[in-house]
Amino acid sequence: MQNKKPLKLVKIGGNIIDNPTELKQFLLDFSKIQGLKVLVHGGGKSATKMAESIGLTPQMIEGRRITDAAMLEVVVMIYAGEINKNIVAQLQANDSNAMGFSGADGNLIASTKRNHTSIDYGYVGDVKKVNTSLLETLLNHQIVPVFCAITHDGKGQLLNTNADTIASELAIALSELFEVTLNYCFEKPGVLFDSEDDSSVIENINPELYSKLKAEKAIHSGMIPKLDNCFNSLSKGVQEIRIGQHAMLKDSDTVCTIIKL
Amino acid sequence: MQNKKPLKLVKIGGNIIDNPTELKQFLLDFSKIQGLKVLVHGGGKSATKMAESIGLTPQMIEGRRITDAAMLEVVVMIYAGEINKNIVAQLQANDSNAMGFSGADGNLIASTKRNHTSIDYGYVGDVKKVNTSLLETLLNHQIVPVFCAITHDGKGQLLNTNADTIASELAIALSELFEVTLNYCFEKPGVLFDSEDDSSVIENINPELYSKLKAEKAIHSGMIPKLDNCFNSLSKGVQEIRIGQHAMLKDSDTVCTIIKL
Repeated sequence: MQNKKPLKLVKIGGNIIDNPTELKQFLLDFSKIQGLKVLVHGGGKSATKMAESIGLTPQMIEGRRITDAAMLEVVVMIYAGEINKNIVAQLQANDSNAMGFSGADGNLIASTKRNHTSIDYGYVGDVKKVNTSLLETLLNHQIVPVFCAITHDGKGQLLNTNADTIASELAIALSELFEVTLNYCFEKPGVLFDSEDDSSVIENINPELYSKLKAEKAIHSGMIPKLDNCFNSLSKGVQEIRIGQHAMLKDSDTVCTIIKL
Repeated sequence: MQNKKPLKLVKIGGNIIDNPTELKQFLLDFSKIQGLKVLVHGGGKSATKMAESIGLTPQMIEGRRITDAAMLEVVVMIYAGEINKNIVAQLQANDSNAMGFSGADGNLIASTKRNHTSIDYGYVGDVKKVNTSLLETLLNHQIVPVFCAITHDGKGQLLNTNADTIASELAIALSELFEVTLNYCFEKPGVLFDSEDDSSVIENINPELYSKLKAEKAIHSGMIPKLDNCFNSLSKGVQEIRIGQHAMLKDSDTVCTIIKL
């Protein structure tokens, strides 16, 4: 187990996807990453826009989209179709041999339809199993997998799945075979001491500091489940997690938040 | 070159895709095919419906869709997203390890934007190169490639491409490595002597009979370019072409048109 190859898993959020100039720059930077890499992308605003333009009203409960059959059609079209294929085509233009996937493709990510006691989330999946052996084969053939946030239940049903969760589940599963760094790229430079001040990036967090910052209420609300999720991934084998707009870049002068055990 | 493995390449048309019951049965039949296989699917009516529901007016010239930027977005969403991923999920449920592709994925099908002297087809691509070596790798790993009719130019531009052409170009390219049978499945039982009479299937055509039937006007109009295209594929290495609703089935009592040199 000493000889695991490094692998960078990068997740980009909707704000980057919604901005063609930023997306182009991001994909150029991503293409320059040497070695094994995987991209996971969220959806951005285009699914909501499309849903509205065909007369659907998107519903959210606790930050999660409620995915009825009509909304599932929309997210499959937008995430697996428009966004995924445009990202793949741009990466190909940058000489990255990208291949776009939903979880159904090659049974790469199987999930289970969420069965919540009080809320019916609709066609939403929780990740059950990652097909690491096929992913390893693809990576060994210099393929750059690009995942959208759609999975399947193995019985013919596609399921809408949170992109952050896909990224962390892929990172955990792949850490059996590779030394995985997970990079969450979003519009902020990192986890902030003060959410109004972009210069207040917390550059390193370990479990001790995290406990301290939570106790001091320096970290609160929405960041707590995100960071809990990060520490969970680290405890399950992920080497390091980086959060921030340029998290995946290696330059020592790039600011981001580095999370390690 | 004596030891080429057989490979079945199957193309399904829009009428099957538009009918969920027929599509389900087709995918069950397709899953039962033993050995190496590839599926190519057309688009059906849902791209036109979607275009209309968001206020676009589809334009056709000489049977080809004119693909402006807005229409390209629609066909990418519908073909590479909705249709492709639903087919893949259903095949997975049938225990076929399907993986859905546009030509951009893995640079599997590169094309050139059509440059016509009098008609501007818009974002329409003519196939330039098939990445047979990557396809061979995937097939050797028991993957069942499922292609939609979207390709790319290698410079970041997705292009709408005729599904029949994709099927024949894939068949020609793969015939370097495999013994390829190309099956065009559509709503008719085969090429008909009388287009009004489904029992008038021409069961076998070779170049001699084809010349004769053309001279007698028994075969005319739309069938001529289709059959010319078939004989072109056969002359470039494809072993056999079958046309008809159940063309891909092996049963000796299944009626279809078999085209050979």
